[in-house]
Amino acid sequence: MDLSPLQKMRLKYRPKIPDLLRDLAAVSLKAQPMAKNLSPAIQRLFPKTFSQTPFVLTQGNAGKARALKVGVVFSGGQAAGGHNVIGGLYDALMKIDPKSELIGFLDGPSGIIQNKKRTLSGEEIAFYRNQGGFDLIGSGRTKIEKPEDFQAALKNAGDFDGLVIIGGDDSNTNAALLAEYFLEHGSRTRVVGVPKTIDGDLRSEDIEISFGFDSACKTYSELIGNIERDALSAKKYYHCIKLMGRSASHIALECALQTRPNLTLIGEEGKTMAQIVDEIADLVKRRKAAGKEYGVILIPEGLVEFMPEIKKLIQELSKGGELSSESAAVFADLPEKVQKQLQLERDPHGNVQVSLIETELILIEKVKKKLEGKFNAVQHFLGYEGRSCLPSNFDASYCYALGLFTALCIRDGLTGVISSIQKLKGAIEQWHLKAVPIVDLIHFEIRKGKEKPVIQKSLVDINGKAFLYFSRLRKSWEVEDRYISPGPIQFFGEAELTDSVPITLE
Amino acid sequence: MDLSPLQKMRLKYRPKIPDLLRDLAAVSLKAQPMAKNLSPAIQRLFPKTFSQTPFVLTQGNAGKARALKVGVVFSGGQAAGGHNVIGGLYDALMKIDPKSELIGFLDGPSGIIQNKKRTLSGEEIAFYRNQGGFDLIGSGRTKIEKPEDFQAALKNAGDFDGLVIIGGDDSNTNAALLAEYFLEHGSRTRVVGVPKTIDGDLRSEDIEISFGFDSACKTYSELIGNIERDALSAKKYYHCIKLMGRSASHIALECALQTRPNLTLIGEEGKTMAQIVDEIADLVKRRKAAGKEYGVILIPEGLVEFMPEIKKLIQELSKGGELSSESAAVFADLPEKVQKQLQLERDPHGNVQVSLIETELILIEKVKKKLEGKFNAVQHFLGYEGRSCLPSNFDASYCYALGLFTALCIRDGLTGVISSIQKLKGAIEQWHLKAVPIVDLIHFEIRKGKEKPVIQKSLVDINGKAFLYFSRLRKSWEVEDRYISPGPIQFFGEAELTDSVPITLE
Repeated sequence: MDLSPLQKMRLKYRPKIPDLLRDLAAVSLKAQPMAKNLSPAIQRLFPKTFSQTPFVLTQGNAGKARALKVGVVFSGGQAAGGHNVIGGLYDALMKIDPKSELIGFLDGPSGIIQNKKRTLSGEEIAFYRNQGGFDLIGSGRTKIEKPEDFQAALKNAGDFDGLVIIGGDDSNTNAALLAEYFLEHGSRTRVVGVPKTIDGDLRSEDIEISFGFDSACKTYSELIGNIERDALSAKKYYHCIKLMGRSASHIALECALQTRPNLTLIGEEGKTMAQIVDEIADLVKRRKAAGKEYGVILIPEGLVEFMPEIKKLIQELSKGGELSSESAAVFADLPEKVQKQLQLERDPHGNVQVSLIETELILIEKVKKKLEGKFNAVQHFLGYEGRSCLPSNFDASYCYALGLFTALCIRDGLTGVISSIQKLKGAIEQWHLKAVPIVDLIHFEIRKGKEKPVIQKSLVDINGKAFLYFSRLRKSWEVEDRYISPGPIQFFGEAELTDSVPITLE
Repeated sequence: MDLSPLQKMRLKYRPKIPDLLRDLAAVSLKAQPMAKNLSPAIQRLFPKTFSQTPFVLTQGNAGKARALKVGVVFSGGQAAGGHNVIGGLYDALMKIDPKSELIGFLDGPSGIIQNKKRTLSGEEIAFYRNQGGFDLIGSGRTKIEKPEDFQAALKNAGDFDGLVIIGGDDSNTNAALLAEYFLEHGSRTRVVGVPKTIDGDLRSEDIEISFGFDSACKTYSELIGNIERDALSAKKYYHCIKLMGRSASHIALECALQTRPNLTLIGEEGKTMAQIVDEIADLVKRRKAAGKEYGVILIPEGLVEFMPEIKKLIQELSKGGELSSESAAVFADLPEKVQKQLQLERDPHGNVQVSLIETELILIEKVKKKLEGKFNAVQHFLGYEGRSCLPSNFDASYCYALGLFTALCIRDGLTGVISSIQKLKGAIEQWHLKAVPIVDLIHFEIRKGKEKPVIQKSLVDINGKAFLYFSRLRKSWEVEDRYISPGPIQFFGEAELTDSVPITLE
């Protein structure tokens, strides 16, 4: 890989740092007592870690530090800023003691299981600062799941001071399980998670946002804005834009606020397929009455999973046997291609692969039928284009701070926690840094027929501020074109452009 | 439509201006005598304009100017910078005489035929400076073709001083025909074309590049670079990226030089489908041998039109009747979906619609078959995302200068010419401005069974400098990953970033 002029300039960018992280020797993590009310099942699964309280970073001498040996791994899909987590980790470890060592496990959690790793040098890391992608050490989707995986992790990382798992909800659940396992087996390795995912579904009261969401939404919004302008100029197509991001509709909501398309479907509203088809057809008719035969519609990737009748159909299909008459009717009404997908392409457990269903195709065909062909649609899918882009200043600084802070969590002996930064919409100098026990986020869910401990995916809260703000405005975007083009991410110039944060955060 | 903070800042951007355009009263267009050798057929078709020579802008008093009434129309697909052509036109007309009038014909050439037009005010234009899209007056694909269209144009624009047609090859052919028609019917309306198209296929010795190409390629290259970084991080997909741009492969070549993917197919090399499938399969095998099961492949939209066996098949299909045994074999070997497209979806003249053929789908299926399934491909299509983006500084300045210059062509009484700016890769101050007779670019071609005057599409010259440079380098990009991410277009900061020009121009 070589670097473009912009990439080279970004190497020199200095992320802004919260005041508390300026002198690492002058701060320490302090327990924040709180009443905990975890279920007996969680207590049984996490006997050593369930009672842990949150810790917050505060002024106060850290005591004598020693050299630390820390492992780091990327888990799951790319998100802009990951390399800065590593940069922050490395810089903090060197400040704590220059004899510290940062070891990258390669190509995801399988690197821990198979002991594929490499000590990372400062020279090497310097080449990746403020760059997109996870390519310094790679990533992967393997999970540490089976007993032998845990044994391998203990063998390969059990004599570290810390192991940092940069990942989404499942990877952080894994981090909690691994923390418990290490303690149980007398290992000194502290496990700390870092909240990563462009999907934005790893949120809680304590985790305001995962990293990568901002950069991905800005990149998608650039493209949506361009497409809107094109629609307005050519006046002949309905651009139906599907947006990456598993179940939750956070990305669609954020991009809608940034670009104001004519219609944005939000899965969490729980509308039926029929309602949504009616809604689109109605929009097309009203716009036609206003002389407009074009438009822009945003469709979250996970939309189909929220449609009651489709949810029911999928459950019945996965179970096998005869379909109910309602589901049979729903099935019969799907495009042939989708019917085939539902019947033939199952995951190893025999479950229907919801992610393969081309929601936008179904909607387009149904709307076309309803409008007797008068729906000139163009399909788009925005996904890979926004996962590995150059991180925005927000993600660059956020990730660097996450890296610095994570090193302190390990230095101060915390385990089974996730690094969290709060007050993100305010000045970076004032950001709060908190280590949140991952067990506090975990509950039991039935997944693929088995009860499993998981971090609940955060969905768009349709009673929350961001959605209510959106729902107040969206009517006015339907027929009048109130399109906005945020344009490409800018790294130089006025702070209004370079340092903006997601609208849903504000 | 509303404006984002970046869009608002771009309103204030002042395009750089060639020295010759600083004082419009001090320059004039001067005939550049040259020997012309046009075919008798062209002479017959353009009796009034065929003998016209090029004109170049030079220092020298322009004489007394008077108020001008000028019409302007966008024709065809969007290209970034179009609004700056209008901005330049308007500013020049006001400088020539503040009583001048600029009239926009709405939604493309149909606006001329149907007399849908509006006088454009300075206040209105101010809202569109350095913005993407064509939405100030819209665009369309209707052609002025039939005798009654020409009559309507004469009726609706025949008493103007000038009519500016901003369009691609066909629209400029139209401009030449209209110029001749107006002269023939005693109209004083001068017709001037402006070279627009992101495809980059409106090039000649005199037209170095059409506007919009730079911005579109920069936007596509941003996304390709992001996808490359993602491929390198996830290490599991071959990203097959189809790029908009009718027949010629200029966009693919430019983007390849900007991003260095593992393989870029260039239609003009004229390889057969079988050769290309072999080439991809071979690449995949060699990369696998190097431990790499991922990659990035660029596919120009028009690729299929250059494949000898597909060309033959399409000819035979369009003609009707029995297929030759070779073509029958080629047909039998295509994916079912493509077979259906070829059989069923014809244009109004019964011709096969080559643009509907999903080349990347055919290639992916064939490579998959050849490699027994071991080709994990993801399809992308980059098109609408790059046509209406905010124009790069290059396109912003280029278009503004084209607008200013086009007004001078009308002021100085030229007709049937296309505005051309030369030495584009050098300093803007030194740009050359030349009015090129469109007839000089026209020849006769068989289109849809009829002989027609057309501007020959400029293809990638596989003996030209840009291609040879690419072909020297491309081997080294195949297995070693020499990916480069140019990142999003930057409008502020160092000139190396903000003022770059297309690599194929250099």
